[in-house]
Amino acid sequence: MQPLRKLMNILKENNLTISAAESCTGGYLSYLLTQLPGSSAVFKGGLVTYSLEAKNSLLGINKKLLEHTQGISAEVALQLSEKTAQSLNSDIATAIVGAAGPGSVNKIPTGTVFIAVHSRKKTCVKKFIFTGSRSQVRKQAAYTAINQILSVLSYF
Amino acid sequence: MQPLRKLMNILKENNLTISAAESCTGGYLSYLLTQLPGSSAVFKGGLVTYSLEAKNSLLGINKKLLEHTQGISAEVALQLSEKTAQSLNSDIATAIVGAAGPGSVNKIPTGTVFIAVHSRKKTCVKKFIFTGSRSQVRKQAAYTAINQILSVLSYF
Repeated sequence: MQPLRKLMNILKENNLTISAAESCTGGYLSYLLTQLPGSSAVFKGGLVTYSLEAKNSLLGINKKLLEHTQGISAEVALQLSEKTAQSLNSDIATAIVGAAGPGSVNKIPTGTVFIAVHSRKKTCVKKFIFTGSRSQVRKQAAYTAINQILSVLSYF
Repeated sequence: MQPLRKLMNILKENNLTISAAESCTGGYLSYLLTQLPGSSAVFKGGLVTYSLEAKNSLLGINKKLLEHTQGISAEVALQLSEKTAQSLNSDIATAIVGAAGPGSVNKIPTGTVFIAVHSRKKTCVKKFIFTGSRSQVRKQAAYTAINQILSVLSYF
């Protein structure tokens, strides 16, 4: 079964809700999570915290941490996922931050993406280096997040 | 010139920033607004206020209005756009609400979409009835929002 459909089915069967915070993917994960009819039963909402300002103002991520990392680090992804779960009152929350390119941010190579998944049973963050164009990096990041959420759901 | 590229150029040339609140499009407009390199100069962030709960908790839309309209009305779109501009501190904000289908919400026909654009010079909301699949309705809504923002920018 297609990972997205599998994810939505598992969430529904277990009465679990999900939300997302996205930086480099710009809303693409939320778009995927609302692609199937009936997604409103599980998807609470998303925050496209694209600017550093939005990461601070919407989710209270520390300004010094944001300046130091330019918003691209495992710690930022973890904090975003935890705070999104609280803010949107969801069982699971995913956060994606990274450098989609072209050009590097803060000496972080293009394609570097951190994906965090937060839940009461398991929280994890992983670093990926995706290759390809800006568009390809963004799409790979969103689809990889779906697989990472599925992996966390195996603990439920 | 492609509308998205034209929009991003106009925003940059005029030092204007933008943000988005999306319901039925689920983040697709934010995804488009971050598609081109350098979009961080103009795109502040987005809110995927998919559930009624998110429309209330993230942007303070009145619960009674939400229950009465199921979140799909010109008034809700207008309020979302105004509050998103405030919340994300942007010059322009767009909000999209609607019924992407399949099936109608609150007797509102599938394909009904309200798009609001808020700015200090001009604020407008328009109702559309899009045809096609859920995916086609969502994409048409996001691309139509880009044209509506361009139209508002002509007042600047």
